[in-house]
Amino acid sequence: MTESEFLAALRTLPLHPAARGLRDDVAVLDPAGPLVLTTDTLVEGIHFLPTDPAADIAWKLGAVNLSDLAAKGALPLGMMLNYTLTGDDAWDAAFIEGLRQLDCNLIGGDTVSLPPGAPRVFTLTAIGTDAGAPPRSGALAGDALYVTGTIGDAGAGLAIARGIAGPDALLTAYRRPMPRIGDGRALARHVNAMMDVSDGLLIDASRMADASGLALAIDLALVPLSRALLDFAGESRATRITAATAGDDYQLLFAASPDLALPVPATRIGSFAAGAGLTLHDGAERIALPPRLGFEHRV
Amino acid sequence: MTESEFLAALRTLPLHPAARGLRDDVAVLDPAGPLVLTTDTLVEGIHFLPTDPAADIAWKLGAVNLSDLAAKGALPLGMMLNYTLTGDDAWDAAFIEGLRQLDCNLIGGDTVSLPPGAPRVFTLTAIGTDAGAPPRSGALAGDALYVTGTIGDAGAGLAIARGIAGPDALLTAYRRPMPRIGDGRALARHVNAMMDVSDGLLIDASRMADASGLALAIDLALVPLSRALLDFAGESRATRITAATAGDDYQLLFAASPDLALPVPATRIGSFAAGAGLTLHDGAERIALPPRLGFEHRV
Repeated sequence: MTESEFLAALRTLPLHPAARGLRDDVAVLDPAGPLVLTTDTLVEGIHFLPTDPAADIAWKLGAVNLSDLAAKGALPLGMMLNYTLTGDDAWDAAFIEGLRQLDCNLIGGDTVSLPPGAPRVFTLTAIGTDAGAPPRSGALAGDALYVTGTIGDAGAGLAIARGIAGPDALLTAYRRPMPRIGDGRALARHVNAMMDVSDGLLIDASRMADASGLALAIDLALVPLSRALLDFAGESRATRITAATAGDDYQLLFAASPDLALPVPATRIGSFAAGAGLTLHDGAERIALPPRLGFEHRV
Repeated sequence: MTESEFLAALRTLPLHPAARGLRDDVAVLDPAGPLVLTTDTLVEGIHFLPTDPAADIAWKLGAVNLSDLAAKGALPLGMMLNYTLTGDDAWDAAFIEGLRQLDCNLIGGDTVSLPPGAPRVFTLTAIGTDAGAPPRSGALAGDALYVTGTIGDAGAGLAIARGIAGPDALLTAYRRPMPRIGDGRALARHVNAMMDVSDGLLIDASRMADASGLALAIDLALVPLSRALLDFAGESRATRITAATAGDDYQLLFAASPDLALPVPATRIGSFAAGAGLTLHDGAERIALPPRLGFEHRV
């Protein structure tokens, strides 16, 4: 597709009025209140595999951004897309279908060509309405650390996408992460700190502790694993460590008073205290931190 | 630099309060009124040369976006940066210095790695406060077409950057385009349509005519050329056609009543009428359109 053909295809997506029909050089947005903005870039060979389906890559590009909004309790308002044309019409069309499945209005963007053979690089910027926007730095000493859903499914899904046999449910967790918008909105005004799990549970949790100026203890035995993952990888400490460092979970990680009646299901996995640094336990046993807590330079 | 080192360097830039110190996953912006949003991606080997200095690429990445704001009369509020780490600390540091020279607050962004050898791909999203936001589609039959500054300097500068001998002034026009923020703000409420010249005067003007549902006649002889360009390329029809199709000018192109007392200097180069299509004249002589009006798939 040429840029103008791609633009014509984008115009079949639900457009925000701010988009001016994607016929101007800018979007003009008249927000009713504070906005939450987030942007993420996904790179072929770094964040997704060349063999991942185009629609799944589009979904993931949107979902990782909407997940950041979810972690702030924000309601998605719209998105801007920076797209690199691939020279493959069917691929470009499938990408747009993946975006359509996100059910989020398009506000604007930019479309460019790449030199031949260059890896695809996609950027999406999501804008949401503010509903509290708990920072990652707001945890208090004495807070409990919670996580929604289960951890490690997407990491196993990546191994499956790379060719290891395994169930579709795990592959779907990797390719089609579901932003926890509803959970985020329910939690935002009750928690002290919140972020999504993108680079790995341990590294993201340690970032929350660092940003809050606190020490954090996590009990690996409490990290919620799915039945599918346990069947796939077996119940062991190694499985739990792999899950807790794999990333791409897009669950919500939050710090709240242990007395809070949780408005949505979540699992308590640790606690904050005065001090600094992450310590790891497996039930009663204190264990060493793995050499790698998650992805550091990837996202 | 690692992502965290790059982030630390970014934190030395002027930060918008919305940035939360670049220590959260999102920005939270509380705008006082409507916002203008624009985003552009620049690709190594497509939009800039591998040999262009890092600070100039950063400047240009910002300037092409701020130029879109200028064309809508918007005042820049801040910017979000999607950066691909280069593995070259001095290059990354120089890039940040180029951003600093833009004098625009940073709101947020994302930093990623690329596979080895991949061309650099940078995205910047600029946000401004609305001040009229004339669309590109608002030209009226009978309007005159005006352009600010001079055209073609950056195109000659690109040739110089590629190795042809020529004056620094033209190279600077290519590497350091100056967004016409002040001109845009002065013009926005008086013009019927406005856009910046990025892909080439002729293609951008024809887009304005198409979007407005009008025919447009441009007199090539009226297209303003700089003394430096005329000295470099010689006064000829070929020079004018090259200038009018070269792109990267980042001047403002606008449609306004021929009776408007212009609040800033600009040159009248054409006129809109009922109908469709672009026609070109060189003084009294009607001439054929060049086969290529500008860049179509690049930006």
